[in-house]
Amino acid sequence: MHRDEALFANEAFYLAFAEGDLAAMDRLWANRPDVVCVHPGWPALTDRDIVMESWARILGNPNQPDVVVHAVETVVLGEAALVVCYEQMGETVMTASNVFVAGPDGPRMVAHHAGLCSDPPGLPAVTAPSFDA
Amino acid sequence: MHRDEALFANEAFYLAFAEGDLAAMDRLWANRPDVVCVHPGWPALTDRDIVMESWARILGNPNQPDVVVHAVETVVLGEAALVVCYEQMGETVMTASNVFVAGPDGPRMVAHHAGLCSDPPGLPAVTAPSFDA
Repeated sequence: MHRDEALFANEAFYLAFAEGDLAAMDRLWANRPDVVCVHPGWPALTDRDIVMESWARILGNPNQPDVVVHAVETVVLGEAALVVCYEQMGETVMTASNVFVAGPDGPRMVAHHAGLCSDPPGLPAVTAPSFDA
Repeated sequence: MHRDEALFANEAFYLAFAEGDLAAMDRLWANRPDVVCVHPGWPALTDRDIVMESWARILGNPNQPDVVVHAVETVVLGEAALVVCYEQMGETVMTASNVFVAGPDGPRMVAHHAGLCSDPPGLPAVTAPSFDA
């Protein structure tokens, strides 16, 4: 996968997240059962249907703060790519690792892992999560 | 990458971790500059030398609790693979995402992302991290 494709897919993920667009989020995730999603503090969700149910809850939460993305870095891994970035949501900052794999219609997400970052570089330090989905 | 190769590499990672074997840890990480390591609560380390310095500190910490691995799942991504599991360290449980890429000498780690899991399945619930490296 080309680095720019991975960055574009990562932007599409956060656009769907920011806009609460569950249909776009569903299209972005790879159409395979073995995707993985780790929301902050949660156990790993390892079934596509359960992952999408989790996004339905999160995107449908009216108190979900806006997400702003910082410091995006990409590691290309053949047909796949890892994108690492920070998610700022209100006073809280998460470190996120997003994995995409090439498909016939472009890159699709196979894994998202986000966790609280207590000392994000160049961003305000935080002590408590507000991610209450 | 074959699933079993990824699982073997994941076991080698936790063996190096459990035994505090920095040389084995260094051999396991891919010999490329753009590896990524996210220790619980930390910002993303995105330079191989800095990643290895972090492991030297963690593995050299005499108070580092033993690590026991649970519920390992693998997602094969062409030449790469993602392994997701839980790391139990004393009273604390982390969710970990580990990414390996095929190399001439077998799979090598390119990314490790661990974060506190407040409600791990089948394991005791925890509320505070003890990961003090």
